[in-house]
Amino acid sequence: MRMNSEEKTRLEKYLEQKRVEVEAAVDRLVPPADTYPQVLFEAARYSLFAGGKRLRPILCIAAAESLGGSSGQVMPCACALEMIHTYSLIHDDLPAMDDDDYRRGKPTNHKIFGEGMAVLAGDVLLTDAFRLLSDRGLFPDAAAGDLLRVVHEISRAAGFFGMVAGQAVDLDSEGKDVTFETLMYIHDHKTAALITVSLRSGAILAGASEARLSDLTKYGRNIGLAFQITDDILNVEGDPALMGKGTGSDGVRRKATWPSVAGLEKAREKVGELVEAALARIASFDDRAEPLRLIARYVGERKT
Amino acid sequence: MRMNSEEKTRLEKYLEQKRVEVEAAVDRLVPPADTYPQVLFEAARYSLFAGGKRLRPILCIAAAESLGGSSGQVMPCACALEMIHTYSLIHDDLPAMDDDDYRRGKPTNHKIFGEGMAVLAGDVLLTDAFRLLSDRGLFPDAAAGDLLRVVHEISRAAGFFGMVAGQAVDLDSEGKDVTFETLMYIHDHKTAALITVSLRSGAILAGASEARLSDLTKYGRNIGLAFQITDDILNVEGDPALMGKGTGSDGVRRKATWPSVAGLEKAREKVGELVEAALARIASFDDRAEPLRLIARYVGERKT
Repeated sequence: MRMNSEEKTRLEKYLEQKRVEVEAAVDRLVPPADTYPQVLFEAARYSLFAGGKRLRPILCIAAAESLGGSSGQVMPCACALEMIHTYSLIHDDLPAMDDDDYRRGKPTNHKIFGEGMAVLAGDVLLTDAFRLLSDRGLFPDAAAGDLLRVVHEISRAAGFFGMVAGQAVDLDSEGKDVTFETLMYIHDHKTAALITVSLRSGAILAGASEARLSDLTKYGRNIGLAFQITDDILNVEGDPALMGKGTGSDGVRRKATWPSVAGLEKAREKVGELVEAALARIASFDDRAEPLRLIARYVGERKT
Repeated sequence: MRMNSEEKTRLEKYLEQKRVEVEAAVDRLVPPADTYPQVLFEAARYSLFAGGKRLRPILCIAAAESLGGSSGQVMPCACALEMIHTYSLIHDDLPAMDDDDYRRGKPTNHKIFGEGMAVLAGDVLLTDAFRLLSDRGLFPDAAAGDLLRVVHEISRAAGFFGMVAGQAVDLDSEGKDVTFETLMYIHDHKTAALITVSLRSGAILAGASEARLSDLTKYGRNIGLAFQITDDILNVEGDPALMGKGTGSDGVRRKATWPSVAGLEKAREKVGELVEAALARIASFDDRAEPLRLIARYVGERKT
């Protein structure tokens, strides 16, 4: 069932409020742009503040809140997740990878700072995410064991067992025929893994039971996959002005996408199924999970 | 005073034994090369097992042992440090950075696997280092708080406040006149920071007092700087066959090195002073610090 206008307004307000909070926290936690060596801090900050929905940090916060935690309690973790996401975009855009000149309507990092500095800006954002996650002063209420578990889960989800593995398969698949299984692997690892661990991290820091963690994990995999498929749909049919970069670029390079393998119609159906499955997983959560419910429905309906 | 032949043999035996132990542990802790996606694991393992002195992991172990700890107690941390060092070499060698075709006599990662996969291989090694450091099963005797401190110190030393910052200044200095202060900054951040944190990590896990940590930190900065200067000296005067890559390449690109700024003679003097200062810092340690003492002297005398 599509969101009514009241629900839409409530969600938009929630997303906007959290986006502003997250951006203020990132600004506070990452050293200022006039720190020596300036070029590195400028390059890192350029991409950190180049816009974006801040979906991963917001999911981290919404998961914590759904279990009675607060956004303040998990904010540095939310910021670390956004830094990891940003590093992955900087490296994905490099000429040796997707070779994109624009992202969200702005020149990509390497177009401004050069390829070498863009590699370093990505490297440093990834590294600095772990500095935040391991800074006990930033998490006064958290047990060291919980923080260590968050570091462990995020490093698994971002590395060999998640995001980079998905990116490697994606890169290796360019110009080849891509099986359905390969496509699923790419989406699950490149996108859903980090989304899922964003929810889990927030929940762990809010003291979630293993049962709740398992529910949120399945919610996360479903909306993560739905999110990636809608990205691919929008890339085929989207309005270039709304998308912020040339549409159809994935098609030109024969890159694996859901619409190219299964067709647009099947892709849209799949998104609907995934959103329903996500909602079912958190059906037993109380009203504090409303943002998670609205976000799942938004993922199914989004136009940008 | 130069090492006598008995000391040399003792050190060589120690380094060889630890090198073999470290390589076996890395092999065990990093997923096998036939893990899907194979190309990523092959690329990461190619550089991990492309040789090298394994200086950072050995310093981590030697620091732990100097305080009564064991190599087994810190081995996964030692491996994580080698993975971070290896990632930095893969990215440094990229065409957009130092553009090196060979390292230690073998083609660099991107020459074999392509630039995109080399970026990802570096990314995944950095990420996976934090997976090891946060895996409590690998450190059965360690307190969560100590492991978290190790994660924090390593992420600081490898990121904005250390290695990547040094690399950014180095990259930004190419083709420019480099002041002495800039040169010191590069060496201190690009090389000494990771060497120092290698010692500190091993010491923290072995239960070091703050006083011992401070001694090891100063030992580390001194030998780290000495190590980098001897690298630069060897790059100018070294035997290409021993160095494993074309010598003088830094000179051609007008890259900041100690010999190019201060001259070979001054550079050699400085190495001697640094080694003496390092030894003075650990003078009060007992016999279990002998490997650290021999390593400091080796750094001053090494020919490869």
